Amino acid sequence: MTVDFRHWMKQHQQLCETVLSDLLPATTLVPTRLHEAMRYAALDGGKRVRALLVFAAGRLFSAPPDLLRRAAAAVEMIHAYSLVHDDMPCMDDDALRRGKPTVHIKYDEATALLVGDALQAQAFLVLSEGEGAPETRLAMLRLLAQASGSTGMCGGQAIDLDSVGLALSREQLEQMHRLKTGALLRASVLLGAMSGKTLSSVEIHALDAYAAAIGLAFQVVDDVLDATADSATLGKTAGKDAADNKPTYVSLLGLQASQQLAAQLCAEAHQALLPFGEQAQYLHDLADLIVQRQA
Amino acid sequence: MTVDFRHWMKQHQQLCETVLSDLLPATTLVPTRLHEAMRYAALDGGKRVRALLVFAAGRLFSAPPDLLRRAAAAVEMIHAYSLVHDDMPCMDDDALRRGKPTVHIKYDEATALLVGDALQAQAFLVLSEGEGAPETRLAMLRLLAQASGSTGMCGGQAIDLDSVGLALSREQLEQMHRLKTGALLRASVLLGAMSGKTLSSVEIHALDAYAAAIGLAFQVVDDVLDATADSATLGKTAGKDAADNKPTYVSLLGLQASQQLAAQLCAEAHQALLPFGEQAQYLHDLADLIVQRQA
Repeated sequence: MTVDFRHWMKQHQQLCETVLSDLLPATTLVPTRLHEAMRYAALDGGKRVRALLVFAAGRLFSAPPDLLRRAAAAVEMIHAYSLVHDDMPCMDDDALRRGKPTVHIKYDEATALLVGDALQAQAFLVLSEGEGAPETRLAMLRLLAQASGSTGMCGGQAIDLDSVGLALSREQLEQMHRLKTGALLRASVLLGAMSGKTLSSVEIHALDAYAAAIGLAFQVVDDVLDATADSATLGKTAGKDAADNKPTYVSLLGLQASQQLAAQLCAEAHQALLPFGEQAQYLHDLADLIVQRQA
Repeated sequence: MTVDFRHWMKQHQQLCETVLSDLLPATTLVPTRLHEAMRYAALDGGKRVRALLVFAAGRLFSAPPDLLRRAAAAVEMIHAYSLVHDDMPCMDDDALRRGKPTVHIKYDEATALLVGDALQAQAFLVLSEGEGAPETRLAMLRLLAQASGSTGMCGGQAIDLDSVGLALSREQLEQMHRLKTGALLRASVLLGAMSGKTLSSVEIHALDAYAAAIGLAFQVVDDVLDATADSATLGKTAGKDAADNKPTYVSLLGLQASQQLAAQLCAEAHQALLPFGEQAQYLHDLADLIVQRQA
């Protein structure tokens, strides 16, 4: 990772906060408590990997800033809603997220439920407003809805639920993660690129290969960190998957083979970007970031 | 209500089931249990008032069938998701809905959470697919997202949560219901009409007046039925709002004044439709249906 990339990353993480803050309802608007809780859930959080993927992919085809910013905000809102619901007592029952009390702890369960529901609607709202060709935005909304729903992120969570205590094969584990985290990461890459131009099937294919590799790498690294890092570093409860008897790459392949797999997937991601040349530099560096992250 | 209307209503309730069944993922598709639960939540349910409003408003401007059907399915999916989440233990904690066990009873809480989340995404997906001018569908998606989110339905539920045990004024009660149920009923009317043509501000104004009147009437009648009908007739637990110490029109105005208010709102709804002439007959009859319903 270059100094240039680190500078770009910090700048765009900050931009993501600003854009989210602008596109979330103000706390002065009724219902004020819900809006406060939505902002608590979505702002000041995480590495913004999904937003960074949108911005980095937007550079491939010089995407217009307004559409790109809305796409980045939309994927981060979907991600934030999924974390809020995932942390609830009936799901993972987690009290800590990004180093802060989870929404149902800070507020209450009913509010957490509504915060998630309202953040999902807000994601579709921000992408349906603003500038840009209607055909493009409609295609982007379609992609986001597909990636979020029952054959995307929600579907992955359902498979995850059904698999607790089961001995999954590597293929089954991969399918679960392809939906649970992979679908929204893929959508982030494609939404960024689509903001700039209508993609050819060759371009979609190359970006899909990149997204599939980083999506899987992301999850492998998550499992490695869950097994090796402490809660303070992670900003969430460490060792939770193992304690919950959930299948992980580490439990399936072991620690060292998992780390090798992550490095191999990173190389595959880099390979997939070759056709895009120099313009893909930040997507290239983001693959490194995903594999080298410590939290 | 005429024989003609009753025939149209039955036909379109049946059409709504068919369209929903077509536009929900098949139970053969992975994850099969989630898809089964989504269909359990959304199919074979209720009077389909929202879908009927879409279809009846679509008649005003001869809306094309595909877009109209997608709009009807989308509002019913949003409504179904809101019921699933509303019934959960952390919200209303209800075991009975439309005469059947609620989703978290039939399946489990985590599945109910995901069913609601996935149905919301599916609503936006079905409206982003299919035929029709991109500008029109983008405007429809924007309206649906606004009506569902934190300044629409979710916002109304948040105000409802915050108002338990409080003595609300009639204005505060009205504002809550304008968001909680009114926003999606209004969206149903406007989505149906928008499927046919781009609406003038005069047309929007008239349809808004109609929608506001039936939205409020719907809630007043709900409160009257909650106080007077039994659970078997309602298909859900009767007397629940009073037992939960929630403010209702009956507790605020008394039973007789509530019934008079419903009749007056029905007359206002009819009045608002006059500019549309004969084409608005079924919207007219739907106002009667809402006020005269027994469940």
